[in-house]
Amino acid sequence: MIGLPDSCCWSVYHSFKNYIEDSKSIFDDLISVAEEHNVDGILTNHINRLKECQKLVMINRSFIDKTITLYNNRFKTKEEIDNSLDFHCCIKPNGHQVDMIQNILEQTIREWGGLGESIRNQTFSPLYDIIGTGKTVLIPGCGLARLPYELQKRGNKCYACECNHFMLMVLNTISIAKENEFKIVPYINCTSDIIDSSKLKIIHSIPDSDPSLLKEIIISDFDFESYCEKTTIQFDVVCTCYFIDTAFDIVNYIKSIKSVLKPKGIWVNIGPLHWVNDCYSSLHLSLDEIFEIAFQVGFTMIKKEMIHSLNYIPQDYFTCPTTYNPCLFVMQNK
Amino acid sequence: MIGLPDSCCWSVYHSFKNYIEDSKSIFDDLISVAEEHNVDGILTNHINRLKECQKLVMINRSFIDKTITLYNNRFKTKEEIDNSLDFHCCIKPNGHQVDMIQNILEQTIREWGGLGESIRNQTFSPLYDIIGTGKTVLIPGCGLARLPYELQKRGNKCYACECNHFMLMVLNTISIAKENEFKIVPYINCTSDIIDSSKLKIIHSIPDSDPSLLKEIIISDFDFESYCEKTTIQFDVVCTCYFIDTAFDIVNYIKSIKSVLKPKGIWVNIGPLHWVNDCYSSLHLSLDEIFEIAFQVGFTMIKKEMIHSLNYIPQDYFTCPTTYNPCLFVMQNK
Repeated sequence: MIGLPDSCCWSVYHSFKNYIEDSKSIFDDLISVAEEHNVDGILTNHINRLKECQKLVMINRSFIDKTITLYNNRFKTKEEIDNSLDFHCCIKPNGHQVDMIQNILEQTIREWGGLGESIRNQTFSPLYDIIGTGKTVLIPGCGLARLPYELQKRGNKCYACECNHFMLMVLNTISIAKENEFKIVPYINCTSDIIDSSKLKIIHSIPDSDPSLLKEIIISDFDFESYCEKTTIQFDVVCTCYFIDTAFDIVNYIKSIKSVLKPKGIWVNIGPLHWVNDCYSSLHLSLDEIFEIAFQVGFTMIKKEMIHSLNYIPQDYFTCPTTYNPCLFVMQNK
Repeated sequence: MIGLPDSCCWSVYHSFKNYIEDSKSIFDDLISVAEEHNVDGILTNHINRLKECQKLVMINRSFIDKTITLYNNRFKTKEEIDNSLDFHCCIKPNGHQVDMIQNILEQTIREWGGLGESIRNQTFSPLYDIIGTGKTVLIPGCGLARLPYELQKRGNKCYACECNHFMLMVLNTISIAKENEFKIVPYINCTSDIIDSSKLKIIHSIPDSDPSLLKEIIISDFDFESYCEKTTIQFDVVCTCYFIDTAFDIVNYIKSIKSVLKPKGIWVNIGPLHWVNDCYSSLHLSLDEIFEIAFQVGFTMIKKEMIHSLNYIPQDYFTCPTTYNPCLFVMQNK
């Protein structure tokens, strides 16, 4: 079992804890609004769909409950749980953190569901080709660790880090799950952009592959920069996948990547620059500026390719899908 | 000159008024952050780019100033302006409404810039083909009125309505402009997702076509439902383009469309269902539910086609472009 942080964010824990109740309450609101507008019964089918979706939320319960139980099991008393949650690093819950759980369910299906296969193929396949086999690889911000799992399966020795508590809690559940152990309805809380409402109700099995190989991967819960300061390993490859735009200071990220690479080691990147810390106190460099800094630090460009229209949710589910134009590039260390 | 609403939103007016100062202040913040991180001068080029962008914001001044002047000219005294702004229908400005002006500049380039041509071709061309010529057409939520302009040019008699005050203020400026009268740098305030920072600095001329034909189009500043209650015209076509998801109550929209159509008249739609009023008090129907309601109200489906990956900003500017899967459909009235 992968180590969880000693103090999990209060709001993350409670988002899981309150998910079923919060979802129920949101659907109650939506149903009330629809009932008010239901002149001559014209919205009856819509209301029935909302009621059906509200019930289907319960399908997600066993996966969510397992995740909470795994967290609780680490502590012997209620007081210990409360103490572990006393570290308020995130915003307090507002009673409607369903969107965060919705996000993690989507992430789960993307990484460990059959439905996510085509997205994984588009995103990961170029990385497999570039990295090859027999390498020591670091994957920072690994999310639910499907990428390190696939690279390990292809004969590499993988290390990873992830410090997002939503990811860590679910990763724990995935890492000890049996193939197809859980059923989830990942899009059941979606209320907008829907092309075909029947697709929301489809039940998916996860994980779609036996995840037991995950135990061979060394996953740290440190943030990336702290990990790099601490590790003594020199890697053949640092593979950043949808990761570099999590930086507050991208210059430090680039220096950290360099510091853990062997001479002639490679940095492989795929992802957008959708700076996650969307505030004016983080650095929002453009791609050309990132390249320039990498060159100044001592990298050489080996490969660069823009990928157009990579979808992050199934294309035919929503009218406004998240689409990226990620850059795939490979830099070599001096 | 198109009529402006008697009381323009205070926040809209002040977003225009404060745009130059607010932009300057945001760039000051970004430059300070970059300077703090500029160890060994590694961010010097990035800082220079920010300073250059800060100066280029001034290019937008003549277009913005003209827009404000046209508003001010309708009133004789400062008191009248203040009174006209006393209707607080929007949120108050927080000093950083630059994003709203950024949006309207992007809209301007999309509708009236050469750069927007391929987007307009993708979105409008199927509508031209379906509507043909010699029709009386209503275009609700017409934005900056390029679609009614193009349909009028193709031999139709166009009516339109638009109640968004950002749109109305800029539409006024466009409608009396000469071809290529203004220069704008539409993406200069973008700070994230940037592939090539030099593209942000490109200066574009607007409007790319002589807009004088706009005066032949009858544009109302009523909201769509009020317009339908008031008008006595029966239309051959109602053309909704990226419009129906502005509804609080989509059932009323559908009934309103029907109420202004001639018998056998057609409703042509292209657009997503990205419900603009993203709160639980508006109805968020799925596409299949909308069709069902249209059938109940008395429409028959003539054509239906999903369009995949329609970009709304130039593909090669950003790593996370806005992409839609809009539905193109045609319904016939009883």
